[in-house]
Amino acid sequence: MTDTVPRPTLEAVAARAGVSRATVSRVVNGSDGVREPLAERVRRAVDELGYVPNQAARSLVTKRHDAIAVIVAEPETRVFADPFFARQLRGISKELTAHDNQLVLLLTEDRDDHARVGRYLAGGHVDGALVFSLHIDDPLPQLIQRAGLPTVYGGRPDWNGGQGGVAYVDSDNRGGARDAVRHLLGLGRERVAHITGALDQTAAVDRLDGFRDVMGGADPLLVAEGDFTPGGGERAMRLLLERCPSLDAVFAANDLMAAGALRVLREHGRRVPDDVAVVGFDDMLPIAEQTDPPLTTVRQDIEEMGRLMARRLLNDGAEPDGLILPTMLVRRASA
Amino acid sequence: MTDTVPRPTLEAVAARAGVSRATVSRVVNGSDGVREPLAERVRRAVDELGYVPNQAARSLVTKRHDAIAVIVAEPETRVFADPFFARQLRGISKELTAHDNQLVLLLTEDRDDHARVGRYLAGGHVDGALVFSLHIDDPLPQLIQRAGLPTVYGGRPDWNGGQGGVAYVDSDNRGGARDAVRHLLGLGRERVAHITGALDQTAAVDRLDGFRDVMGGADPLLVAEGDFTPGGGERAMRLLLERCPSLDAVFAANDLMAAGALRVLREHGRRVPDDVAVVGFDDMLPIAEQTDPPLTTVRQDIEEMGRLMARRLLNDGAEPDGLILPTMLVRRASA
Repeated sequence: MTDTVPRPTLEAVAARAGVSRATVSRVVNGSDGVREPLAERVRRAVDELGYVPNQAARSLVTKRHDAIAVIVAEPETRVFADPFFARQLRGISKELTAHDNQLVLLLTEDRDDHARVGRYLAGGHVDGALVFSLHIDDPLPQLIQRAGLPTVYGGRPDWNGGQGGVAYVDSDNRGGARDAVRHLLGLGRERVAHITGALDQTAAVDRLDGFRDVMGGADPLLVAEGDFTPGGGERAMRLLLERCPSLDAVFAANDLMAAGALRVLREHGRRVPDDVAVVGFDDMLPIAEQTDPPLTTVRQDIEEMGRLMARRLLNDGAEPDGLILPTMLVRRASA
Repeated sequence: MTDTVPRPTLEAVAARAGVSRATVSRVVNGSDGVREPLAERVRRAVDELGYVPNQAARSLVTKRHDAIAVIVAEPETRVFADPFFARQLRGISKELTAHDNQLVLLLTEDRDDHARVGRYLAGGHVDGALVFSLHIDDPLPQLIQRAGLPTVYGGRPDWNGGQGGVAYVDSDNRGGARDAVRHLLGLGRERVAHITGALDQTAAVDRLDGFRDVMGGADPLLVAEGDFTPGGGERAMRLLLERCPSLDAVFAANDLMAAGALRVLREHGRRVPDDVAVVGFDDMLPIAEQTDPPLTTVRQDIEEMGRLMARRLLNDGAEPDGLILPTMLVRRASA
């Protein structure tokens, strides 16, 4: 959007209405403290000049919405299919409710809808935004920044936010991945494969980096890209078995893909963990306990991540920097 | 976005309508203070000149947000645990996106939060509301009415909305329940039990009424109240087996409860359908196909219900009356 003409200012409105800037501000903010004839004069000046309050600033200053937008940068179908999101929303919802703030979940069909989400955010309907599952090159962060809303991201964004930095909460994805691979090597496995998440997401990139930290110059054929869905895990596992029939371990970047990999291994007559040991990521219950065999995995506290995102936004006004939560290896039968 | 042609101003509208700028402003703001013939003249001038209030100011001024609130009157945890809601949201989301309207899902922890939802709705953030899974005595409808928003309900509300009526979309719950019970009687079953849904919801009441329509003066011990969850179905099934060990058929008011009932019947060594025939409601896939044995059930088109709710709200401005969708018995192995 290009402003070709300078926007009328609050000062101009005050001058035209013959009132103080504070009075204009009160009227525009919808506070009750201004007598009606005066308020009407201000409204008329607003109309005549075409003054547009900076709505983002308005909601920030007055906090009169007591509402926080949550945006999951995924199609609505995935939000409901992947229990990860429900878990994170759980934490967010608890924290917002404890502070009597309304959780406003903005659902979309796909990335084309993000411009509309940006408009809603800029429209002065919420006091801040919580954003998760960002993909690299998503226009959303720019739209949010333009809306001027305090924002906390779930998961490390792929940019550093410049001098201002960027507020986010994440798990130690790289450290957790290292623990997973070290555990497999500790069991005496030699050909450890990795099913990555969607590599346009930093969580997937960081877990791949952790895998490489430990495996060093592993055969690139031992890495197959998945997409964090069970179907993606199945496809990647098939590819890996074709390429490297002798693999003896798999680290999948989340439990849903690990569950898909287990199904494919069973189809191919591979015993888990005897022939192939499998480790997941998330410790998503009940899935991780109900796979056959139950899944060794890297636990991250997803609900706590959501809770802390909300808490940072409400308490700190989203001071920019990252908060990294520890992960923990949970041993079950699959490795 | 760059404006290449000067936009018609408020002043131009005032001149054309022969009224003061303040009057135009009030009409555009939707305030009540302008007599109808005058307001109509202003609206005509607005139309003729193609006057559009500054895009950014428009949502503040005219209360058009291109956003629709969706409220599921259930705790956030149930919204994500019961696939029924995801299905209904699916239909709503598709329809709203097709009309470039933002889906604003207002999540809550429990009924105590409904007052906060009411405040958000009254705060001028959305153009209308879609509400489903209402429970009897929920204060929500009153709060929504007070907010003055066009509203379409999913499921028949328990009040008729007075003279104005109330706009809703529902399935033929009573007729579907009759079909289910007649099917069981047609198989020669004699002691047909019913697991109801939460009886503070009209869908549960209507299905119970359908059961009674066919069974007439059935033993009241053959009816046990569930709550639409798998756990509720298990508890009700245990109670029914204690009370009436000789029952030979069960109609559960949704598939999730039917799945719970199947587990309890298996625990008790009852063969389905040989000893006990089971019918559910919803045809919730993949659940209804994956139970053991696969479930005979009453299909309702949940996604279509959601789509029609959104369509009615957007197109008709929520003309008050009910729209009832047909149901269909789907035969699988359980009955």
